Amino acid sequence: MKAVYFDGSKISLKTDYPNPKSGEALVKVRLAGICGTDLEMIQGYASYVGILGHEFVGEVVESDNKNLIGKRIVGEINAGCGKCQMCADGLERHCPNRTVLGIYKRDGAFAQYLSLPEKNLHIIPDSVSDEQAVFVEPLAAAFEIEEQLKIKSDAKIAVLGDGRLAQLIVRVLRINHTNITCFGKHKEKLDMASKLGIQTKIGITPKDEHSFDVVVEATGSESGFLDTMKLAKPRGTVVLKSTIASKNRLDLTTAIVNEITFVGSRCGPFRPAIQALATGAVSVDDLIDSVYSLDDLGEALVAAKNKLKVLLKP
Amino acid sequence: MKAVYFDGSKISLKTDYPNPKSGEALVKVRLAGICGTDLEMIQGYASYVGILGHEFVGEVVESDNKNLIGKRIVGEINAGCGKCQMCADGLERHCPNRTVLGIYKRDGAFAQYLSLPEKNLHIIPDSVSDEQAVFVEPLAAAFEIEEQLKIKSDAKIAVLGDGRLAQLIVRVLRINHTNITCFGKHKEKLDMASKLGIQTKIGITPKDEHSFDVVVEATGSESGFLDTMKLAKPRGTVVLKSTIASKNRLDLTTAIVNEITFVGSRCGPFRPAIQALATGAVSVDDLIDSVYSLDDLGEALVAAKNKLKVLLKP
Repeated sequence: MKAVYFDGSKISLKTDYPNPKSGEALVKVRLAGICGTDLEMIQGYASYVGILGHEFVGEVVESDNKNLIGKRIVGEINAGCGKCQMCADGLERHCPNRTVLGIYKRDGAFAQYLSLPEKNLHIIPDSVSDEQAVFVEPLAAAFEIEEQLKIKSDAKIAVLGDGRLAQLIVRVLRINHTNITCFGKHKEKLDMASKLGIQTKIGITPKDEHSFDVVVEATGSESGFLDTMKLAKPRGTVVLKSTIASKNRLDLTTAIVNEITFVGSRCGPFRPAIQALATGAVSVDDLIDSVYSLDDLGEALVAAKNKLKVLLKP
Repeated sequence: MKAVYFDGSKISLKTDYPNPKSGEALVKVRLAGICGTDLEMIQGYASYVGILGHEFVGEVVESDNKNLIGKRIVGEINAGCGKCQMCADGLERHCPNRTVLGIYKRDGAFAQYLSLPEKNLHIIPDSVSDEQAVFVEPLAAAFEIEEQLKIKSDAKIAVLGDGRLAQLIVRVLRINHTNITCFGKHKEKLDMASKLGIQTKIGITPKDEHSFDVVVEATGSESGFLDTMKLAKPRGTVVLKSTIASKNRLDLTTAIVNEITFVGSRCGPFRPAIQALATGAVSVDDLIDSVYSLDDLGEALVAAKNKLKVLLKP
């Protein structure tokens, strides 16, 4: 089959990659999304070797569960061992022996076929298009915030960033919250949030400092992390959605003096994400930039660096 | 009066320092404690100028509240403006316009006299000695952990550090919790925790990794901060009690992937600390190393660097 393979240093399009192993559901990929994590992984992050890609919608072609065959599905990317305490607690995504689609010890979605355990799959309603369904995985990560935290409906919330993830986060938070400010760097991207009734700002003013109950970091940059400590009020909460590795000296004194709570936040629940797309509570149509074939992978990756969401059609 | 003055670069003993301003309770200092923060401040941390010291027990000599005069007291170190939302919420210690005894814009306790607002003072019961009462402020900081977090009684807890603060933290946590391990570097200090029934360890073994529900950082070192991410289990909680400033590249990826919650934790409630000393729920007698006069300040500071608790008698 055709597949985008990463050998640890460079990517290449293979045309004769072996089909996924049996013993799991075999899924024909209909559409996949390029995520910031994919771009980071190509830089060598996580020292992954294999087929990239973890955002996808597909069709089940083989499965022990006959009810799934022919169904359009999306899939949770963490596959737990099924034996440990985390798996027993329903937290397969924290299983110490897990594999992760296109990220850790499991071939991913930038291919014609992938495999996943049946229990990872969620059927997509007909009212949700393929283009929308590709957003379920990152949208679930946005829903994870309120899975972890109880945020009051009138809480003053700051979202840092205006890229893919930040756009999804403001769309999810606005369902239950009215006082949201999105801090970004790109006027045209911030305008997309403005259209949804979100307040937007380029740059932090003195009045913003230490005034937010909840601050969500979705820039993935060290400066974004430093800004969280500037914006959160004493005893406030900071949600870390993007991974941070500081290059410089990082001083946490402000966070400790102000008794800030930092919450690391990652993959989230698929059901509310699918539901939100099906009901229209969250719209993602304006976020799709372009669709490329696997053959035009190089071009697609260049586009993904600057655009909000670039899709791949195997 | 006699006072230990820090001019921003060096400390000196003044014999003719003016007495504290009026309009607040005037307190004759009976005994003061040297804290790690004092030692850091002498290095220029927080760019403070004035009399050092914030751990003390004293006797009220002047006050508008006649009931306080002659009483033995300890004092909360944060003095709020009394006008802002934080003060209205009873969180004077987070007031943006606060002064802090011996730390920020308010002369401290390494002197014959100090002043504080009446509402900051707590009368000490006769059953608590001066030497014990000096521990109320740092002990309150240890009680702050359970003020901020609800920790299950059977939670698996790690305390990192074996110095002053860590010793107080294990003493407080053992009141309600049975499964505590103290990770330190000094056998003789860890032995003090062992005597209280705390498990102790020098060094982290593979079996310890990602196995603790709650990890309390009280080393004040960058390596201690990195160890928290190694010890906390996925979805676990890390309490940051000592201020951290990393010198090297700091990678928070593990914390985000494992969805760790970090809680900055600082000053705490005085009442449970006084109560614990009065009832004997917490004993601090073994932590006191030596008592120096203000005249022997230099010697006292050298001792404080290596000892658990050094006291000053004005």
